Amino acid sequence: MNLIDALNWRYATKRMTGAKVPDETIHRILDAARLSASSMGFQPYTILVISNEDVKKKLHPASFNQPQVIESSHLLVFCAWADYGEKEVDEYMANIAKTRNMDVALLDGFKQAVMGAVNGKSPEEKFNWAARQAYIALGTTLAAAALEQVDANGMEGFNPAQVDEALGLKEKNLRSLAYVAIGYRSAEDQLQFAAKVRREKDKLFHFLN
Amino acid sequence: MNLIDALNWRYATKRMTGAKVPDETIHRILDAARLSASSMGFQPYTILVISNEDVKKKLHPASFNQPQVIESSHLLVFCAWADYGEKEVDEYMANIAKTRNMDVALLDGFKQAVMGAVNGKSPEEKFNWAARQAYIALGTTLAAAALEQVDANGMEGFNPAQVDEALGLKEKNLRSLAYVAIGYRSAEDQLQFAAKVRREKDKLFHFLN
Repeated sequence: MNLIDALNWRYATKRMTGAKVPDETIHRILDAARLSASSMGFQPYTILVISNEDVKKKLHPASFNQPQVIESSHLLVFCAWADYGEKEVDEYMANIAKTRNMDVALLDGFKQAVMGAVNGKSPEEKFNWAARQAYIALGTTLAAAALEQVDANGMEGFNPAQVDEALGLKEKNLRSLAYVAIGYRSAEDQLQFAAKVRREKDKLFHFLN
Repeated sequence: MNLIDALNWRYATKRMTGAKVPDETIHRILDAARLSASSMGFQPYTILVISNEDVKKKLHPASFNQPQVIESSHLLVFCAWADYGEKEVDEYMANIAKTRNMDVALLDGFKQAVMGAVNGKSPEEKFNWAARQAYIALGTTLAAAALEQVDANGMEGFNPAQVDEALGLKEKNLRSLAYVAIGYRSAEDQLQFAAKVRREKDKLFHFLN
């Protein structure tokens, strides 16, 4: 299935069957998320992958009791790093050096560039930057799931403070941003039969030819 | 080509050939962007699609003279709506009613829900929410281009105030967020030969099984 057909097939699935998505399928979707682009390659976010039913139940009341939290196979919680600085930039440089089999000292110029981008931001700007990067990965995840013919629902409908508390995210230097509930659509979910609504092309896009 | 292979093939292309991407390919990439998920389906963003060389030249100095601004085939400028309220929500409701051939009055409950989400936010929160939604579409766009074997570079490296000024975005109620430069990699671009660096899977993901 090509991407356009896959994106037309998908929808924000509110009712799922509870059936489990095979591990190898989940991992292909996660691999796509991992390969997502990120500004300067920094990826200042972490993604919780929850298949534990007790944890999902704990998040349910903090998520306005939406059924897909329980009925999903896997609930992904996209989290921005709450804070970051030289330690995280050094870890990134070490990963580049290891991946490219080079001396980390050769990356000093690039390190200074990333540090400049990080240090030039207020704590709130840092958080918002990290959140935007996470949403690139979220978009990739939804596309990847659709191409696998697996349903996925991007969700902001939860109380972030309650979710952070329930998952102990503060201690992990994380702040919850959005879920992606992954699973299979229930036949009961009427929304699958509704026409997809998107802004018209000549409004969404301005062409400067 | 599957998505994983496509994402491994792509990279942040800094030098492009200047060759034009065929219109039908560009439109498939834009269709994917259009079909991207958005919180509540609202899509509070607009995407400029610039193939005009004079406009690209005007943006070049505001973009730290990065060559891909000029050497791209099409430069996409992802913009958040600077402000939005009941007018924009009503336009959205009208689009739903038209697309689904239903009476707009039946959408009153949903309209109140969207208005609640909009009115509960400060101007800065509104902008950040719109920006995140735009980044979902940005992620989809990069994936779509890769699947078309077209190069694309997501870019935050420009001066937003200068770009907004150069494109008259304030008058259009828009604020620039990020570019996607679309085109074809130049053989000169050494980065295409470098191993892709991404956070290791056991760091990027936390599994709660």
